[in-house]
Amino acid sequence: MGMVGGGQLARMSAAPAAALGIDFRVLATSPEESAAQVVSDVALGAHDDEHAIVKFAEGCDVVTFDHEHVPPPILEKLEARGVAVRPGPHALINAQDKAIMRRTLEGAGAPVPQWRVVESAGAAEEFADEVGYPFILKTTRGGYDGKGVWRIPDVTELQRVMTVSLPPGAQWLAEAAVPFVQELSAQIARSPSGQTVAYPVVRTVQADGICSEVVAPAPGLDGDRAVDAQKIALDIAGALNVTGMLAVEMFDTGDELLVNELAMRPHNSGHWSIEGAVTSQFENHLRAVLDLPLGSPVMRAPHAVMVNILGGDVGDLYSAYRHVFARDPGLKVHLYGKEVRPGRKVGHVTAVGNDVETLLARARHAADYFSGAIDE
Amino acid sequence: MGMVGGGQLARMSAAPAAALGIDFRVLATSPEESAAQVVSDVALGAHDDEHAIVKFAEGCDVVTFDHEHVPPPILEKLEARGVAVRPGPHALINAQDKAIMRRTLEGAGAPVPQWRVVESAGAAEEFADEVGYPFILKTTRGGYDGKGVWRIPDVTELQRVMTVSLPPGAQWLAEAAVPFVQELSAQIARSPSGQTVAYPVVRTVQADGICSEVVAPAPGLDGDRAVDAQKIALDIAGALNVTGMLAVEMFDTGDELLVNELAMRPHNSGHWSIEGAVTSQFENHLRAVLDLPLGSPVMRAPHAVMVNILGGDVGDLYSAYRHVFARDPGLKVHLYGKEVRPGRKVGHVTAVGNDVETLLARARHAADYFSGAIDE
Repeated sequence: MGMVGGGQLARMSAAPAAALGIDFRVLATSPEESAAQVVSDVALGAHDDEHAIVKFAEGCDVVTFDHEHVPPPILEKLEARGVAVRPGPHALINAQDKAIMRRTLEGAGAPVPQWRVVESAGAAEEFADEVGYPFILKTTRGGYDGKGVWRIPDVTELQRVMTVSLPPGAQWLAEAAVPFVQELSAQIARSPSGQTVAYPVVRTVQADGICSEVVAPAPGLDGDRAVDAQKIALDIAGALNVTGMLAVEMFDTGDELLVNELAMRPHNSGHWSIEGAVTSQFENHLRAVLDLPLGSPVMRAPHAVMVNILGGDVGDLYSAYRHVFARDPGLKVHLYGKEVRPGRKVGHVTAVGNDVETLLARARHAADYFSGAIDE
Repeated sequence: MGMVGGGQLARMSAAPAAALGIDFRVLATSPEESAAQVVSDVALGAHDDEHAIVKFAEGCDVVTFDHEHVPPPILEKLEARGVAVRPGPHALINAQDKAIMRRTLEGAGAPVPQWRVVESAGAAEEFADEVGYPFILKTTRGGYDGKGVWRIPDVTELQRVMTVSLPPGAQWLAEAAVPFVQELSAQIARSPSGQTVAYPVVRTVQADGICSEVVAPAPGLDGDRAVDAQKIALDIAGALNVTGMLAVEMFDTGDELLVNELAMRPHNSGHWSIEGAVTSQFENHLRAVLDLPLGSPVMRAPHAVMVNILGGDVGDLYSAYRHVFARDPGLKVHLYGKEVRPGRKVGHVTAVGNDVETLLARARHAADYFSGAIDE
């Protein structure tokens, strides 16, 4: 199995690959990348370098992704050479281009916020006249972790943002701002044979566009609404023929669920599953893309919380262990081996147990201590 | 951190090393060895090759062991060069030489079966006259997984066995055969600072001298007896100044506990802890030898069972996944990437839950299917 991209998702995939005895190769951009530090079989190359990817895929039965933005023509070439690409390019394009994703979702009957591709500031103003300010402006390609997304409060800011150069192939996508009571993520795994399993729907909390916390299962979400969210994710996976993990990020408006984003790979909203579920999202992604029967997604405790560790002023994360582990022997810490830069995701903390507020307080404390926000 | 030996213990240590962001290097005898397949930083060399080990340890802050039988003079040399060796040679010698272990344990007041180093068949016969046949004959060095251990029913067999050549440096050790109601393993982790945590005492089941099953916690062991077993392990760890994981294998005679063997590393009797405990034995071994505060050894479910997968007639273990995983989505399987040979430990299966008999039936079925003993 080859995974394109050498970030923390590939790094965390290496553990179940080793446990299951699966030969696991990553394509990383440098030997210092997160997964390249810990995986024995590493090829170097960029996600959009056709030659590197074709060479990387030689000897792989299946190619999958830590990094979703491999150009579809390269993936089609791999398929033509007999490599199974999972998810395939026709599914993956929906995670690469938000305009295509919106059209596909609408076609599949999935609920989405009001949206429009806008070619000019004038067209965006017309959209704003219909949905009102503030509204959301995104680049259809090239965004991640809050980059490529703007909340537009007025026409002045609209005109300022639209002077930003678009990434190659990208367009402007305008969307109505959705007032929500919480943001949710519904994750499912789906195999080429069509077997699916649905993880418990979780609450995600964003700060500055970056996922900061996840609570599993989503607090206060009633059972019927949770099933609705799982059904939306299952319907999308089927309609798009997704293989592997699919994360569907949604707004819960209180009245309805609206799909915000899709990710076709293990996702930050599922890191809790390493300790919190019988089968982690990383293991089920491997099992799904290998078309092996999927593992149970059932939770191993009533609640699990995950808090991301964001880079702060302290470059040396290791030295925090003495305090963090002495204070709380039950926490699970994952560091990604990434150079610390302010605001960058460099690790996460998971706590599993019976009381959500206690779990959150414990995990937040550790994450804040790692980032240097607190010193005791 | 450097780990000498590239077997499955090193392979399973790699996952928590990556999660904790610890640079992890193994000394393996070949690139095909279990851990060498999955670890990025591999040096090649034998456990008794001084030059290879000294070179391997360069740049390591701490050296520890998957393979316990590194000659003490090599370890003393590493210590003289400023490398922390954990456990140190004075502790480790007790896991290397069963006669030294017996003397040390007796000196520390730990309960042991009646024993004697015997230089000749005649001396062994004298011992047998005192304790009766059958008794147990072992080589003091070089034994593992039932090799180097014989049950002696009579003088004919005694004379036959003692014609076997002893491994280098080994002597014959005669021990009384202990009638037991069950075999137990008490595992603790101990750091250089002296912090210790004790895992639940487990039942181990041996077949042909190889650990075949582990049940955690040990069924039918009353609370006081379990605490006694933990105390014995803690006392031994303190008396021997063990750092890292210590497994104390014991006989429960119904009336008393007698120490059988020691292992100063993660141990087969603790593989259940990967899924069954808050902190696995592999993570706590790393934390202990790095002198980080130890993680909670508390169980995450009422019961956990582990069944070893022994090699059978089927060379391809992977193909069993389709049946095993479809039948039981809750099982956790670990394959070690080792060439299948009859009777060789090539993986294990863990099941965690509420009912021991059900867990055992599930795990045994999968292990039997992998080994080819059953085909449905």
